[in-house]
Amino acid sequence: MSTHAAVRSLNINNINPHVRAAEYAVRGELAVRAEEYRAKLAKGCTDLPFDKVISANIGNPQQLDQKPITFFRQVLSLVEYPQLLEKEAVLLEQLGYKSDVIERAKWLLKEVGSVGAYSASAGAPGIRDSVAKFLERRDGFPADPKDIYLSAGASSGVNTLLHIICAGPNTGVLVPIPQYPLYTATLSLLNAQCVPYYLDESKGWGTDLEAIKAAHKKAVDEGTDVRAIVIINPGNPTGASLSVEDIKAVIDFAAQEKLVIMADEVYQTNIFLGEFHSFKKVLRSMQKDEPEKYKYVELASLHSISKGMVGECGHRGGYFELCGFDPEVVEQIYKFVSISLCAPVVAQCVVEMMVNPPKEGEPSYELYKQEWDGIYTGLRERARALYKAFREMEGVECQDPQGAMYLFPTIHLPPKAIEAAKKEGRSPDEFYAFRLLDATGVCVVPGSGFGQKENTLHFRTTFLAPGTEWVGRITKFHKEFMDEFR
Amino acid sequence: MSTHAAVRSLNINNINPHVRAAEYAVRGELAVRAEEYRAKLAKGCTDLPFDKVISANIGNPQQLDQKPITFFRQVLSLVEYPQLLEKEAVLLEQLGYKSDVIERAKWLLKEVGSVGAYSASAGAPGIRDSVAKFLERRDGFPADPKDIYLSAGASSGVNTLLHIICAGPNTGVLVPIPQYPLYTATLSLLNAQCVPYYLDESKGWGTDLEAIKAAHKKAVDEGTDVRAIVIINPGNPTGASLSVEDIKAVIDFAAQEKLVIMADEVYQTNIFLGEFHSFKKVLRSMQKDEPEKYKYVELASLHSISKGMVGECGHRGGYFELCGFDPEVVEQIYKFVSISLCAPVVAQCVVEMMVNPPKEGEPSYELYKQEWDGIYTGLRERARALYKAFREMEGVECQDPQGAMYLFPTIHLPPKAIEAAKKEGRSPDEFYAFRLLDATGVCVVPGSGFGQKENTLHFRTTFLAPGTEWVGRITKFHKEFMDEFR
Repeated sequence: MSTHAAVRSLNINNINPHVRAAEYAVRGELAVRAEEYRAKLAKGCTDLPFDKVISANIGNPQQLDQKPITFFRQVLSLVEYPQLLEKEAVLLEQLGYKSDVIERAKWLLKEVGSVGAYSASAGAPGIRDSVAKFLERRDGFPADPKDIYLSAGASSGVNTLLHIICAGPNTGVLVPIPQYPLYTATLSLLNAQCVPYYLDESKGWGTDLEAIKAAHKKAVDEGTDVRAIVIINPGNPTGASLSVEDIKAVIDFAAQEKLVIMADEVYQTNIFLGEFHSFKKVLRSMQKDEPEKYKYVELASLHSISKGMVGECGHRGGYFELCGFDPEVVEQIYKFVSISLCAPVVAQCVVEMMVNPPKEGEPSYELYKQEWDGIYTGLRERARALYKAFREMEGVECQDPQGAMYLFPTIHLPPKAIEAAKKEGRSPDEFYAFRLLDATGVCVVPGSGFGQKENTLHFRTTFLAPGTEWVGRITKFHKEFMDEFR
Repeated sequence: MSTHAAVRSLNINNINPHVRAAEYAVRGELAVRAEEYRAKLAKGCTDLPFDKVISANIGNPQQLDQKPITFFRQVLSLVEYPQLLEKEAVLLEQLGYKSDVIERAKWLLKEVGSVGAYSASAGAPGIRDSVAKFLERRDGFPADPKDIYLSAGASSGVNTLLHIICAGPNTGVLVPIPQYPLYTATLSLLNAQCVPYYLDESKGWGTDLEAIKAAHKKAVDEGTDVRAIVIINPGNPTGASLSVEDIKAVIDFAAQEKLVIMADEVYQTNIFLGEFHSFKKVLRSMQKDEPEKYKYVELASLHSISKGMVGECGHRGGYFELCGFDPEVVEQIYKFVSISLCAPVVAQCVVEMMVNPPKEGEPSYELYKQEWDGIYTGLRERARALYKAFREMEGVECQDPQGAMYLFPTIHLPPKAIEAAKKEGRSPDEFYAFRLLDATGVCVVPGSGFGQKENTLHFRTTFLAPGTEWVGRITKFHKEFMDEFR
């Protein structure tokens, strides 16, 4: 029983107020209710109006039947149980392993020793080398393994970087709105200021330099020490994919105002329109042309094994690369990561395979390519199908799916629905999302969980769930909802 | 190049001062130098006075050739690559898997879906059930799966709990000295106060209630809001193992002063003298006898897969159990852990196997038992050997090895050595540890990294490294050191 009388040390009014203030809607009340429905169904309950819960609230591909890449998992089976390597003939002839799987497992074991041992704090040196080589191939510019930090997912990298950047309540960080709420939640925990800048929905949710400038100026005028800008590209929750020009504009502004750029690039392979441009590549090109002007730009770019066609979120792996940071600051980053010892070593191995997958001509390449392309095509098709369904719904507007795993449609709800929400003490988009869950078992996240312009309403849904039946459920619900509240 | 001119956003003087203030010697300058030596040796360098680096600075069993438990790793190979389950005959007849390995893998996969998918924030429900059942067997009192939170190692659990407890610079937490520096480092990061209480070296590093009371009173008198007490049992770095009486005294004091008890019990199976008594069991017994008096005691107890005979630190897994917390506070703990999504799912599987290993009569039991006993006996023997070596060294005193993975001897250094340290700007124990590393390749952690009474000097060494040759290196070094500075 909760009690505010002083019988315990801790109560809701005396714990860390910054934890209390943090909001993280992706796994909030809606997600909890969805889990309750799932548990009910698992127990054979039949009085719900649906027979399956669709968790479209979170980018969790393998929960929604995305199959892991075979090469990755075969290698992991060997690094987990290296004795299998003593039975090469059985692996090759009876279990379908290819020789490059065995070679990779041996190499990884040489690099990490045992996956049950702590690695060096920033990750196993050989794996950091692999990441650096990948970045060189991707960007056409050198990368130094010393600048790479392996992390327990990108979330852990963001946590590290914001811990260093935020020096107190006066520190401000420019964060796009809408945004993945990890950023605002972590800034709350650190008692620092989120300086919101709005993305431009009318331009496919691209960055709007004027909006960034205005947000920055307003914060600086109010006395905030704005130190960094977060960019999520491709966008979460928006799916936007930035052009080189947009990226250049951000870097130029960051150089001018001395802002650390945090480039969250975890969706770099989830691109359905145009192509991905890394901040690192664009920065290095600009530095080549105008070395003095961009010499000291501080860029931290993050990547993850959780997204893309890899989709290994449960393993908790990722990395970040630092460019242009002061060496004394880097030492503090090293110390900070060392306190939590190291990223999960199996996840480090997945990072290595993500950045260094089987190459054309190698035994595992064909299957790898086929799996990769199958996942990619499936995602693109489902994105288009969902997009089309949204376009046909009354009062719903949706931008073209460009990247990431999400659509973030605008919904225009009738005044009666807005009133009904008010009565329940919920925001209208939250009210809508709860109604959707209760009626269909589809769990989405209301736009208010990411931030949205005043007087606009949205929700975020992943397009990971297989099939289209669940899209039909949404369409039907929406029509009935609109009819009810019209 | 480091520069304090304002060319960048971040420099050592403007970043988060609490990160700067945090100290974590286990992976500090000494460990970095040890890694440099290791890299040199790997490159074939022959001008060092040793041919192998012994990392006795950190409890990393599998880096020091402790073999993983076969049952665990066989199961993990299957959960990583479930297609192997389609070849049961090959597994059983040609690869030496037993039927209970296959059953366990199937069960775990049913519980988690895919190890590549995020689990629920507090961990997969079926695994939390297993932990609860283990606690019931261990303690003889009920445990509720809802109170169990799976975490990325105990470190992550400590981080969560201290984030909730610490509300500002006025919050104090009682921490044993010497202690594992995660506690002081996290309190620094949170800008809260470490209220040190000294352990009693003369009584095998046990808790001394009078010392706790005095430390508490002093802090309260100074206006500190002391909210929690940390107990590490078995002790790190001391190896002490607490008696039921000691534990009762702490619980009684915590009840009286309304302190959250954080019981770090990660070494609960590393017991070489006496037996382990969990705080939970002792608390429940006290509550049975005097329900009103102990009704609201708040206990968080932590465990880990990193230590014991499991030694799977690289997987980053653990859990904590909450007893007696206010439900509104628990909600905030849930929200906090949900921001970092979930503990690595493979590590959650290891937690499950740690708490529910093969039972007598099951096919994998015999090998499991043999491996477990072999590791246990090896650790005990090495602890004794090292202990004996220390007892014979000039100016060294060492308590009986009781538990954990460490010895923490006192060293009395000659005045000339203390002067020489001063000249190098180091504390005498740090000076000694650097000399030891440079001469022998053995890396230990100076006592100052854990805290020690004024005018005393110690170092912490694990007894994980195989063989005794390295113990001989320490003995020889120590003699020469004493001769040099006598």
